[in-house]
Amino acid sequence: MNKVIECIPNFSEGRDKAAIEKIMDTLRGRENIKLLDYSSDEDHNRTVVTFIGTPEAMVDAIADFAKAVYENIDMTKHSGGHPRMGALDVVPFVPVKGVDAAECVEVAEKVGKLLGEKYSIPVYLYEDAARTAARKNLADVRKGQYEGFFEKIKLAEWKPDFGPEQVNLKGGCTAVGVRFPLVAFNVNLGTSDLAVAENIAKTVRHIGGGLRFVKAMGVMLHDRNITQVSMNLVNYEKTAVYRAFEMIRMEARRYGVAVVGSEVVGLIPMDALINSAEYYLQIENFSKDQILERRIWE
Amino acid sequence: MNKVIECIPNFSEGRDKAAIEKIMDTLRGRENIKLLDYSSDEDHNRTVVTFIGTPEAMVDAIADFAKAVYENIDMTKHSGGHPRMGALDVVPFVPVKGVDAAECVEVAEKVGKLLGEKYSIPVYLYEDAARTAARKNLADVRKGQYEGFFEKIKLAEWKPDFGPEQVNLKGGCTAVGVRFPLVAFNVNLGTSDLAVAENIAKTVRHIGGGLRFVKAMGVMLHDRNITQVSMNLVNYEKTAVYRAFEMIRMEARRYGVAVVGSEVVGLIPMDALINSAEYYLQIENFSKDQILERRIWE
Repeated sequence: MNKVIECIPNFSEGRDKAAIEKIMDTLRGRENIKLLDYSSDEDHNRTVVTFIGTPEAMVDAIADFAKAVYENIDMTKHSGGHPRMGALDVVPFVPVKGVDAAECVEVAEKVGKLLGEKYSIPVYLYEDAARTAARKNLADVRKGQYEGFFEKIKLAEWKPDFGPEQVNLKGGCTAVGVRFPLVAFNVNLGTSDLAVAENIAKTVRHIGGGLRFVKAMGVMLHDRNITQVSMNLVNYEKTAVYRAFEMIRMEARRYGVAVVGSEVVGLIPMDALINSAEYYLQIENFSKDQILERRIWE
Repeated sequence: MNKVIECIPNFSEGRDKAAIEKIMDTLRGRENIKLLDYSSDEDHNRTVVTFIGTPEAMVDAIADFAKAVYENIDMTKHSGGHPRMGALDVVPFVPVKGVDAAECVEVAEKVGKLLGEKYSIPVYLYEDAARTAARKNLADVRKGQYEGFFEKIKLAEWKPDFGPEQVNLKGGCTAVGVRFPLVAFNVNLGTSDLAVAENIAKTVRHIGGGLRFVKAMGVMLHDRNITQVSMNLVNYEKTAVYRAFEMIRMEARRYGVAVVGSEVVGLIPMDALINSAEYYLQIENFSKDQILERRIWE
């Protein structure tokens, strides 16, 4: 594959293994498509998928994938800890190799048109694919969530970019975008007090006066009876993983709460972790060319 | 390349550029062989080469490389600051991808046999390829150097593993081994007192009661007027980079001395740094397969 796009669709099912596998099967054994990872979260009731492929193979793959999503998920019955606006909630494309953002936007538009016309789903283009500034930010697009969209979609400024001008009852709406590689990084706190996680999330995230490229929210991890600051680091080059991590640790001290662990969800670019190793080990003048595997791969 | 072995041969010529290039040319433009680096030291009169390749391609590459070494180096005329036992002094193999130490030992044995039979060079297998405990340590094998081997080779315990039982006058002897990837990692201290660096080096290294896979010494950095604990981490999986780093920081507190930086010399396997990022960021259940580049390029 000379041209590689990464696609990280999120769908609103994280508990029903059989349904999840039916959906995932649509991405297996395809030419010029490689499924890299998928992980389901029961509390979020959500699955995050990562696959790569050529721009040409991408649209057909999403068509089959979306069909299985809409057949297996009913948004009228969905609940979970993560904000969502539809069964196929978000479909972000990331340029990986031999393509730029513009070429990814072309793919995003083809996919948006397909979801709108073939499956009658209202589609919103976001981030680098957004047609207006108001749709740049996924959180703004998704605000109100599935339940709120029945009213929101009636507003002139929230007319979908593709598809019908009313919410698909079972499928909801879908956001299709193009973005920088995102790091999903969650920090676990040694407290069951959700307010602590929520307060820390508010201070660390951009909209709360925190770090420029951090989106964060507080989440309860019921199975462990602890809480979590769940983050999306939307530009790990400018807002490093260690910086978000240390800021959470620092804020947690206010509550006498310890950081008990963290979690990388899905894939992470190597540089995002190497950069944190450099920070903590205080490595001077390190060049990424010193990494043995990089010399082998490239 | 699904299977990759790294080879770091050292040959006894570091001054004659024409001869060095003739030798290096044998590793260029070969299928399934990639030359990564070579550097010559005039004081040592020695060149250290790093290349990677498949197990199959390795033996033929070394055959041509060794031929050029023996044609261009005459040990009867060699002098230099670094211990050496032959023109092609050492040939260590390191498992990198899809191979284990056992498969590297097979390659080392083929190469040993080839050097012995085709070029009449006495060959000693060392470290993980050693057939006896006495040949594990390269320093023990090489003791006496080229000049001393004319007597040493007559001893029953120093009968070569391959090749003739007498030293090749022009080519000397060669040590062929298999070892774990080595990490050269130095930690800089905010003091110009060499005794502090030396004392810390003694406590952190294996022979001083410290960490099992650490070799260390204190070094003065004259240009910065600070000192350094210079280390070889000979098994970064069992003695992690962060552990050596934190132990040095902990010991430095005894002297009220701060760690002011660190340095990675040459190449480092990705996992050695990722592992430190995992430690400091307290990442739970991280799988190396979550690294994007690993999934794309492999």
